[in-house]
Amino acid sequence: MSTAQDDRTARPRPRGRGRRPADEVRADVLAVVGRIVLAEGIADLTFERVARLAGVSRTTLHKWWPSRGALALDGYFHAVQNTLAFDDTQDVRADLRHQLHSFAGVMATPGGRALLEIIGTSQTDADLAAAYRRLYSSGRRELAYERLTRARERGEIRDDVDVRVLVDQLWGAVYHRLLVPDEPVTPAFLDALVDNLFDGVAPR
Amino acid sequence: MSTAQDDRTARPRPRGRGRRPADEVRADVLAVVGRIVLAEGIADLTFERVARLAGVSRTTLHKWWPSRGALALDGYFHAVQNTLAFDDTQDVRADLRHQLHSFAGVMATPGGRALLEIIGTSQTDADLAAAYRRLYSSGRRELAYERLTRARERGEIRDDVDVRVLVDQLWGAVYHRLLVPDEPVTPAFLDALVDNLFDGVAPR
Repeated sequence: MSTAQDDRTARPRPRGRGRRPADEVRADVLAVVGRIVLAEGIADLTFERVARLAGVSRTTLHKWWPSRGALALDGYFHAVQNTLAFDDTQDVRADLRHQLHSFAGVMATPGGRALLEIIGTSQTDADLAAAYRRLYSSGRRELAYERLTRARERGEIRDDVDVRVLVDQLWGAVYHRLLVPDEPVTPAFLDALVDNLFDGVAPR
Repeated sequence: MSTAQDDRTARPRPRGRGRRPADEVRADVLAVVGRIVLAEGIADLTFERVARLAGVSRTTLHKWWPSRGALALDGYFHAVQNTLAFDDTQDVRADLRHQLHSFAGVMATPGGRALLEIIGTSQTDADLAAAYRRLYSSGRRELAYERLTRARERGEIRDDVDVRVLVDQLWGAVYHRLLVPDEPVTPAFLDALVDNLFDGVAPR
């Protein structure tokens, strides 16, 4: 896990005379935000600090992200994208197991902890709930649907199975243990999620 | 679904000269609290109101329940106990389906909404998180473990399956859709949870 650069040693990009393309500026901002959120959580994430580190104006940041929460979620989504990417080794069970272990690792970082707090706050904050779904959870669900649908097309999952339900029985089950920690998230738990679902728990 | 009695028409128990047994008083209090929480949520649940309706002193309430949250959780647990009780028709799949439908019904009440808000707040409030686990979630898990273990002993679930994981893949999956509502909780979803888990999703 990489840690956030110390702000004092981080060099903001020099602002040249020419305008940098918006896409590039946006990617820089998301990289800065992602590093901070993963390493520290969101308590000390401010528009001012991000503006300084990414070498962009606060006006630009506010134009693209209406709130600190939106900025944090967008940065987090991009920061975990590679870690949470699905392998495709033609063995969906192995790929899911591998991804679930990575996911549990990410959730154990300050960034993962911050995500649980955002889910928590969103129970009483409809704007944050909408931002969370738009900027994080719906995108993550889509990526899982794609991988599971590919497995179904290849015959690794039965045709009559609704892959949307599997998302709740895999990652949703992990979120449940994280949000209500009566039982721990262990490697054996993660493997059992996949085995139970693919093999079924009834006698064969 | 019964609604809370209107406070103005609710008659507090007359306080006789003799002392009522503590168990009886406790049961009365929990009944009053449960009715309020299910019908309204917890926003207007106060020690004063409960003391008045149950005919007990606030001192007694404070002695038994250290906080409003603890009182609400204890009352809620008892209020839903019958609705969420597991049938035992010797067909665990049918019994689970039936219970999951009841559970989704309870979660759609103001009391269920309040429960989600407690889970939300408990992400940043360690005392509330501990109270939630002690007074609600660990007890509900135990009841599910009992029912699932009985099914395993009867051969409806394989011996090598850890029934604790099934709780997260059934009720945990429902909580996930409630806490992060990207997808709705429908009857088809509830049935699919049981079918996926018992039959497995791999081709047979």
